[in-house]
Amino acid sequence: MNLKNFRVVLVNPLYATNVGAVCRAMKNMGLNDLALVTPRCDVTTHECQQWACHANNILKKRRTFATLAEAVADCGLVAGTTARPGLYREHIRTPRDWAPRLLTATSTGRVALVFGPEDNGLSNDDLALCTQLMRIPSSARYASLNLSQAVMVVCYELFTATKRFKIPTERTPEAPNGMREQMFKMWRQSLLEIGFMDQHTADHMMLGLRRIFSRGQLSENDVRILIGIGRQTQWCAGEMRRRGGVLLPKKRPPKTTDHA
Amino acid sequence: MNLKNFRVVLVNPLYATNVGAVCRAMKNMGLNDLALVTPRCDVTTHECQQWACHANNILKKRRTFATLAEAVADCGLVAGTTARPGLYREHIRTPRDWAPRLLTATSTGRVALVFGPEDNGLSNDDLALCTQLMRIPSSARYASLNLSQAVMVVCYELFTATKRFKIPTERTPEAPNGMREQMFKMWRQSLLEIGFMDQHTADHMMLGLRRIFSRGQLSENDVRILIGIGRQTQWCAGEMRRRGGVLLPKKRPPKTTDHA
Repeated sequence: MNLKNFRVVLVNPLYATNVGAVCRAMKNMGLNDLALVTPRCDVTTHECQQWACHANNILKKRRTFATLAEAVADCGLVAGTTARPGLYREHIRTPRDWAPRLLTATSTGRVALVFGPEDNGLSNDDLALCTQLMRIPSSARYASLNLSQAVMVVCYELFTATKRFKIPTERTPEAPNGMREQMFKMWRQSLLEIGFMDQHTADHMMLGLRRIFSRGQLSENDVRILIGIGRQTQWCAGEMRRRGGVLLPKKRPPKTTDHA
Repeated sequence: MNLKNFRVVLVNPLYATNVGAVCRAMKNMGLNDLALVTPRCDVTTHECQQWACHANNILKKRRTFATLAEAVADCGLVAGTTARPGLYREHIRTPRDWAPRLLTATSTGRVALVFGPEDNGLSNDDLALCTQLMRIPSSARYASLNLSQAVMVVCYELFTATKRFKIPTERTPEAPNGMREQMFKMWRQSLLEIGFMDQHTADHMMLGLRRIFSRGQLSENDVRILIGIGRQTQWCAGEMRRRGGVLLPKKRPPKTTDHA
């Protein structure tokens, strides 16, 4: 697998903004080889460079060809995108379906990803040069994607299929059972002491709380926070009693109505 | 699952072109509810409408809010996109990871997909409102996606996860074995008659051809074409002989060197 062996080929692009946005999408997804086939726009404008943003190096290194055949002459596989039914339709797959095959082919040579003009899509002659046809999943009510967004989806699928991307997170381990039980014990005691529940209702209420706190991962740090809340609540209830406060039996907190 | 229950929320967008392109991406992927939080651009311009293309209805129906809290007040889940490390980082997943959870939640209520401004991303206060954090896989060398392309990737992942999209193809069945064997018999005979191989090398060569024609699906129509080629080749060899032509022993076709 070698993302650098992918070549994005834009056939007769109409808008320089799209060409710029394509450069950015390519760099976002680790590709860098751009070929234009007789563009109908000026890609040397400031606007085009603005859309390329920090991918101006790709825009600068672009190559221009007179025909699609010349642009893909050195490519092993040639994957074209089309939303048109008809020609060769039994060979159309989604980019996600084709991604493993295309990635494998980049190990031994160049692979072209071909996108048609904004106004027409790829012609039948262009499609005939393709060894693979791709169609991006989209709503039947509006199937035509913006050119640069179509390039983004295809490049994103290829990048994702490399499985090299890992979100740089610091995963915290689940809190151990002993810690969680300590927390539930603390909460039980504190909820009794503030009069939220009594001994009759405590078991039932604690089952509800166990359910709430079991829906997602609880890290050691999460459990330390929850233990702290229980401890402080207990302290507060003790202070109240020491200062002559008395719990009304089965006192419940008022229902919140303020959603602000 | 109900894609109509997703709300795309753009916080302080800077470029009207992006807002327009977001509308198009949403409609491409079956979403239609757009909310803007204090936009810094004029989304009533002709340019914005051009970028929205055939998704102008989404642009027209957009709602504008003063704060993110107001824009998502009626949403069950609130999924924010961020490329920033740090805050709550252990909760960040890719859009593909979160898609099933978010889709399930649309069965019972609205779900917000929140995107930060082009220049800053979501603030810590905004991220605190999010129940889910998403990060789009991207190259470490250039991780910041164009706003509308980020929206496209997220909407595309949600649309794809519905598994409702089927490429409208007419799959042709594999040709049955009998037809393929008829083809190989025809080719064997014709390749002998044109002198491409002789009886000594025929078995070996036919194994090679079987390998070539077994790499992909062969439909009945494909096999009919290949049988036709064999038949016509045989006819041609017969004509040649009838007109006094003689095969040179073990004549091989010249190696092609012309790649044009």
